[in-house]
Amino acid sequence: MARVNQNFLKLEQSYLFTRVAQKVNAFAAQNPGRTIIRMGIGDVTLPLAPVVVEALHQGAREMGVKETFKGYGPEQGYAFVREAVAGYYKAEMGVEVAPDEILISDGAKSDVGNIVDLFDTDNTVLICDPVYPVYLDTNIMSGRRVVLMKAGSENGFLPMPDPAVRADLIYLCSPNNPTGAVYTREQLGEWVDYARKTGAIILFDAAYERFVQDPALPRSIFQIPGARECAIEFCSLSKTAGFTGLRCGYTVVPRELCATDASGNRVPLLPLWVRRQTTKFNGVSYVVQKAAAAVFGPQGLAQCDENLACYRQNAQIIRELMEEKGVEYYGGLHSPYIWMRCPGGMKSWDFFDRLLEEQAVVGTPGAGFGAAGEGFFRLTAFGTQEGTREAMDRMRALL
Amino acid sequence: MARVNQNFLKLEQSYLFTRVAQKVNAFAAQNPGRTIIRMGIGDVTLPLAPVVVEALHQGAREMGVKETFKGYGPEQGYAFVREAVAGYYKAEMGVEVAPDEILISDGAKSDVGNIVDLFDTDNTVLICDPVYPVYLDTNIMSGRRVVLMKAGSENGFLPMPDPAVRADLIYLCSPNNPTGAVYTREQLGEWVDYARKTGAIILFDAAYERFVQDPALPRSIFQIPGARECAIEFCSLSKTAGFTGLRCGYTVVPRELCATDASGNRVPLLPLWVRRQTTKFNGVSYVVQKAAAAVFGPQGLAQCDENLACYRQNAQIIRELMEEKGVEYYGGLHSPYIWMRCPGGMKSWDFFDRLLEEQAVVGTPGAGFGAAGEGFFRLTAFGTQEGTREAMDRMRALL
Repeated sequence: MARVNQNFLKLEQSYLFTRVAQKVNAFAAQNPGRTIIRMGIGDVTLPLAPVVVEALHQGAREMGVKETFKGYGPEQGYAFVREAVAGYYKAEMGVEVAPDEILISDGAKSDVGNIVDLFDTDNTVLICDPVYPVYLDTNIMSGRRVVLMKAGSENGFLPMPDPAVRADLIYLCSPNNPTGAVYTREQLGEWVDYARKTGAIILFDAAYERFVQDPALPRSIFQIPGARECAIEFCSLSKTAGFTGLRCGYTVVPRELCATDASGNRVPLLPLWVRRQTTKFNGVSYVVQKAAAAVFGPQGLAQCDENLACYRQNAQIIRELMEEKGVEYYGGLHSPYIWMRCPGGMKSWDFFDRLLEEQAVVGTPGAGFGAAGEGFFRLTAFGTQEGTREAMDRMRALL
Repeated sequence: MARVNQNFLKLEQSYLFTRVAQKVNAFAAQNPGRTIIRMGIGDVTLPLAPVVVEALHQGAREMGVKETFKGYGPEQGYAFVREAVAGYYKAEMGVEVAPDEILISDGAKSDVGNIVDLFDTDNTVLICDPVYPVYLDTNIMSGRRVVLMKAGSENGFLPMPDPAVRADLIYLCSPNNPTGAVYTREQLGEWVDYARKTGAIILFDAAYERFVQDPALPRSIFQIPGARECAIEFCSLSKTAGFTGLRCGYTVVPRELCATDASGNRVPLLPLWVRRQTTKFNGVSYVVQKAAAAVFGPQGLAQCDENLACYRQNAQIIRELMEEKGVEYYGGLHSPYIWMRCPGGMKSWDFFDRLLEEQAVVGTPGAGFGAAGEGFFRLTAFGTQEGTREAMDRMRALL
């Protein structure tokens, strides 16, 4: 008699963004005449950079000709992409990672979700609240104990290690989704020290690294001394290069990073991640890997950065309204997310409903990211500039 | 102190095809002048069909223009692909599956690997020996009891249910990888009856369905009455349309299919699979989904079938040598795989080494698929026709 994984039955019924989409679809169906402005899900809106599109065409041409056709690639990704990512780390962040410590995947969400396969279910997981739901849900699915650390106004939504709290796996995301808050080098250094002292592993989500504009702020945890002994980093081309629909990300597992087996022996994690990916994954589409390599090529980053500049302007437009109205908010400077307190002490979903129904503007309820997000609301800068201006004009009436 | 998933330490050190690749690479490095013919890994060699290439170009063009750019798609796949797959089932196999029972993924290997997330680790898993290593390794990784059912000459490499053996999850693959053997409708019917009687779920791998040429043989388990209450089917465009490097597959979970919770209540599996995929996956690349839809379009299957005809000819060439030399073999008629007994009672890896070293031909050792595969060897029909002819000429000397 086949039995289900009982842990699935402990999950919230639907993924946050599915619930948001359902509400928006219902509203759209009931209000066919109204123009909805979507600032909810963190999805980009500008097209792929020309060199990326050309790389897709080039890949398509190669796949159509016997001499250049590509079948199964290495599950870990083609060397030309892994080397391009290593070059990016070196040139942009001064970080040395070897190409074989970098595994290419179909996105950071997949890797963040799948990495839990490597760890004992008996580990305790430390997660911020509010949080990107994938960290929490994937650990509920696999039955791990989760300890939440509260982020809030009192710590600028940047919780720091608590010596009284023990954890084996620690999820950090900076620039943060959903709050837009960014750890300083000193703060991340404290986390690295804590992890090394306790033998914990930091699962560091750097998906928004390219929004950091201040060179003093870290973009990779590997800019922090000692991080190679205690951290895995996840990154993505979704936001850097508009790959949300094209799908490509990468995960860095330093060769010296170890966890322990039941007898306390140190077990390197890189071979385990390689084993997981070679067994349960078959590599990223060749044409997408061609496109990914183009991002890191000579014109790629410059072209992608033009899009990022537009999103940064949108963030600025949102921040200006927050400043004008004296709203408490976080992020928006080194992040595409603006995390605002709902007006008049409203609850998150109430503000979501009101903003949707009265102004046809979609955001994401802070409470959807965890109990500590209650009373807050997330806006994204990934819309069009016209849409963002229009949304702020509409929202002004409610603030 | 982070602890690893101990189950990973019980795995064979490397994935079978990784070991084969290492041996071949070493041979190539030591013998730079020799031309190696690869009939090992089941990878296609003919380029993508013209309509598929054109769909990739079309997708690339759309992604480069603001008006048609696609960001995050539905994690389950775009409706146009799900509907195309449903139409394929109906037209080709007379099987009714609803588009929302079909989830599009980056390949059957990923889905076969990830489906285990849905089931209790306390389930017992029934797996053929020899077997596609992914079924076994993914269950070792998640710590399930595995019961092997021996396939061999005595049952034509098609094991049937044993009433004395109880299992909760049953992996079946037909046409089989690695043996090329194909279940009849009657045989699959016995499996369906057994599963329904015992409450087991059949995980049916139909990746090679399009190689079936005899309409009396089943291509989908859903051609068997009652299968919707006991089976999940995995399929792929890798072999049907040469997508090994492009990456697209699909999994069908019937709406009425249930497993039980700890209290014995029936829990539908489709919502669980949707929850797994929406949480730990972010959908297949839009350009790849465009290409996938083109496969099922008016010209798509016809163009793809031209490639399949070439592979069938290769299988015929291999079978002719087997017949000529009186070698015991299976498959090759409704399958791209030929499963042959090694000559002179040789062991699988010994024959692998000898064939590589003496003739520079690569196959896959049967023992790599399980202990019951010892003494057998797998050849694939996915090479070029010249290469296949040349390989058989070289191999003739050893038989």
